[in-house]
Amino acid sequence: MAVWKLTIAYDGTEFSGWQAQPEQRTVQDVVETAWREITGETLRMSASSRTDAGVHAAAQVVGVETQSRLGAEKLLGGINAKLPDDVVLLAVDEAPAGFHATRDAVRKRYRYQIHNDRRRPLFDRRYVWHVPQSLDAAAMHRAGQALVGEHDFASFQSAGSRRESTVRTISTVDIQQGGEGRSASIWIDVEGDGFLYNMVRIIVGTLVEVGLHKQAEPWLAEVLAAGDRRAAGKTAPPQGLMLLHVEY
Amino acid sequence: MAVWKLTIAYDGTEFSGWQAQPEQRTVQDVVETAWREITGETLRMSASSRTDAGVHAAAQVVGVETQSRLGAEKLLGGINAKLPDDVVLLAVDEAPAGFHATRDAVRKRYRYQIHNDRRRPLFDRRYVWHVPQSLDAAAMHRAGQALVGEHDFASFQSAGSRRESTVRTISTVDIQQGGEGRSASIWIDVEGDGFLYNMVRIIVGTLVEVGLHKQAEPWLAEVLAAGDRRAAGKTAPPQGLMLLHVEY
Repeated sequence: MAVWKLTIAYDGTEFSGWQAQPEQRTVQDVVETAWREITGETLRMSASSRTDAGVHAAAQVVGVETQSRLGAEKLLGGINAKLPDDVVLLAVDEAPAGFHATRDAVRKRYRYQIHNDRRRPLFDRRYVWHVPQSLDAAAMHRAGQALVGEHDFASFQSAGSRRESTVRTISTVDIQQGGEGRSASIWIDVEGDGFLYNMVRIIVGTLVEVGLHKQAEPWLAEVLAAGDRRAAGKTAPPQGLMLLHVEY
Repeated sequence: MAVWKLTIAYDGTEFSGWQAQPEQRTVQDVVETAWREITGETLRMSASSRTDAGVHAAAQVVGVETQSRLGAEKLLGGINAKLPDDVVLLAVDEAPAGFHATRDAVRKRYRYQIHNDRRRPLFDRRYVWHVPQSLDAAAMHRAGQALVGEHDFASFQSAGSRRESTVRTISTVDIQQGGEGRSASIWIDVEGDGFLYNMVRIIVGTLVEVGLHKQAEPWLAEVLAAGDRRAAGKTAPPQGLMLLHVEY
């Protein structure tokens, strides 16, 4: 038996998220189908994150335990040839026995991109949230630092999740204006040891309230302390969110 | 009567080019329809370039002679509200009487983007040509300098055009690797006073032969001298091409 770590990128626009669901087009189904076509083997894969419908991944990590004797190069070429044009298998690496992509992840980094311009986004419209009113990115960055550290993030969790603890550790909140020379872009990078349901999107929706000067910078600490989803801002839409990197 | 210069960006993926054609979705039709919905006026617009099916524009220029008394701001907001999400009206500026977007253009700049990586493109797959074999961008740049100046570009014209003269002046051929920090990108910028049918795409297809070392750098001068389409390389696919800028 071999254990592989697959690194996968996808455009989430036309997927109902990572996780397989009946009657839905999901990334998991598409990757498992490509795997079956190449190896003849039907199996269930585990992923670092169950990204939601419309959310993208630059480097989702997937674990596979297989009986197939195909090597990494053969799997890489063969599976990519079977995948649709909105999913790319970036790498196939050996993983230690017992590797589990969900359980073993120690840190994840997400990026949320806002198109902050009166004009609509065009070439990147599938990958950004359009906020036409001018945002104060520096204020958002300062306000966001209240989230760094170990906290109870119950205020930043959508209903419908069943996680036992809502305590997580955020190591980085970094907000920059003008990624890749485009001044109309605001990037919000959040890195942590784990995330609750919709947590990054609620953080973004809350920080935008500060960016619009509807709330003052210390508001983030108040929202955290409330321990109540109703204290936070709206959930930002999915298409601005990208899973950037997972550390093991 | 007012004369306006409209600057328009579009994602050409789902258009049969700029020019109105029966039974086809074209940018001209979509913009003229939005204009009619806002002003009540049916008219034909002239554009700086009749971009082909699948070709994009960062700043196409369109001329309009109108009886409408709506001001620039009203037109900008109103028309954008009526346009689909793959077309954006960037600016509405006053133009001199008699302005004609096609005839009065003195210089145009196109950019062609190649995704030069063994792996398939993902997030920018609608805007690049995928060339998996490694390209020598420096050799392409040196070879391309043979095109700069006034030349007969008959070798770089597809059949089916009826232009009287095939002499054009190219002021810049600039080839760079790694636009916006992505090392897998090659950008080919070509600026000139006018372009024959498919001229930029044939230039790109020809330069790629040099980039693959299938032809030596002096080959470009030979192709020019031949005055025959069959001497040049293939026509590069449309999705890598973008009309960047038009000067009047």
